Formats: sequence, structure tokens, C-alpha cells
Amino acid sequence: MSEFALDARLEKDSELFTILGLCQLRLLKDSRWPWLMLVPQRPDKTEIFELAPLDQAMLTFETNLVAEALKTVTGARKINVGALGNVVSQLHVHVVARNEGDPNWPGPIWGYGSAVAYDETVKQTFLRSLMQAL
Amino acid sequence: MSEFALDARLEKDSELFTILGLCQLRLLKDSRWPWLMLVPQRPDKTEIFELAPLDQAMLTFETNLVAEALKTVTGARKINVGALGNVVSQLHVHVVARNEGDPNWPGPIWGYGSAVAYDETVKQTFLRSLMQAL
Repeated sequence: MSEFALDARLEKDSELFTILGLCQLRLLKDSRWPWLMLVPQRPDKTEIFELAPLDQAMLTFETNLVAEALKTVTGARKINVGALGNVVSQLHVHVVARNEGDPNWPGPIWGYGSAVAYDETVKQTFLRSLMQAL
Repeated sequence: MSEFALDARLEKDSELFTILGLCQLRLLKDSRWPWLMLVPQRPDKTEIFELAPLDQAMLTFETNLVAEALKTVTGARKINVGALGNVVSQLHVHVVARNEGDPNWPGPIWGYGSAVAYDETVKQTFLRSLMQAL
């Protein structure tokens, strides 16, 4: 059985925020939207249904925990949750806060434009609020 | 407590295939991708985390059941699962079979181009296979 290792592209595009029971919770390096990502720490998984049943339940629990906290912190109109994996096959789940008028609203965020780096102070403030809401 | 009623836009854009324990399973009227949608039959929900815990678990179970069946039937490279709801707020989960070279690959399907109607024979064949896989 192989060890879990984070995909290089996911590692480059995001930073570790905390570790939940099953997943790494990561912040995307893109300030255009409050954009988090859960990566289940299980090797060789590309689809949610490939996880063991208990892991599927854990992933649901952790995803919904993060989604609710993100809604609380941002006051967003809608949380977008998606597991695509067309570019990076390692299983990962996006949780994104969306508002009317944000980039590409009401379309999806994936594949749209280029990342905009965070201001460090803005990022730290956001992550502190998120930690409290979790 | 209000009754569940399907959103008019979801009703127009898709057709009922079957009813699972919690969700309506619907086929999108768009042959560009094998594209299914689960709609939990609960009124006034817009986010997955607003569902009762048992409903969240049911939704996970039904989503993964459908995703696995769709992968089996289509042999797709990747299943895309998404709950966006930026346009239609009623809670609904997309399950889509994706392959290299399909429209907008590897980008997302949402908001891309215009729907292409199914050939009736193609649709019936697809739905028969799906029913067997479920």
C-alpha cells in the first residue's frame, strides 16, 4: 500500500491551512474568491466513490463543516462545492464562496483567468476568522 | 413546513429519470456530456450543510452511487461532481461524465455554450444502461 503524497500541482497552487480528521484543508493562492480545498489523505484516489464508505462519510462531514464556516465568515450568497479533477487527478474538493459580481459570476471559477496573489494582511485576517468559525 | 416543489428552471432543463431514497435523479436535456442531476426532495434548501445530518449522509450515498454507475456506463476518464447553485438556488448536485476532447475539456461544463438535444434512441439506450448499472 502506497503512502499519501500531495500532488505537486495542488501543492504549488495552494497552502496548507490545517489538517482535519481525513483531509488537508488548503487555501488557494488566489484572492479573487475565498477558495478552499479539501484533500483526503488517502493514496491513489481520484473519485469520491473510490474512498471507503467511512471515508466518504468523513469527507462529507468535513466538506460541510468547511462550507458552513466559509459562509459564516464571508457572508457569501452561495457556496460552490466541486470535485472535478480533470487537470489534477488526485482527489480534491473545492469549496468556494461566491457573490454576485465576483469574477465570472454566475459562471464557475475553474479555468477562468489567472490567479491574483493575496495581500498578506488580508490573508491572515481571513484565515484567523476561518479558524474561529471552524 | 412547506412542501418540496421542483424549481421551474431545473424542471425545464432536465427530465425525471427515477426517484432514489432522498433525491430525484434527473437527466439534463443536453447530449454534449452524459449529465445527471440529483435534487434532494426537501423544501427551502440551498446549501448541502442546511440538510439534516442523515440527509447529508443520504445525499453522499446517492451521489456516489450515481457517480459510480455513470462511470461504469460511460467508461469516462473523470466524473465531475458539483453543487453550485449560482443561477438556480434550489439545492441540486451535478454528476457529469468527462473525457479528453469533450466540449470545454478540461474546463467545467457549467455556463459553456448551448444545450444540444438528444437523439431519442441514443437517450433511451443510455438510460437503459444506467438503470442496469444502478
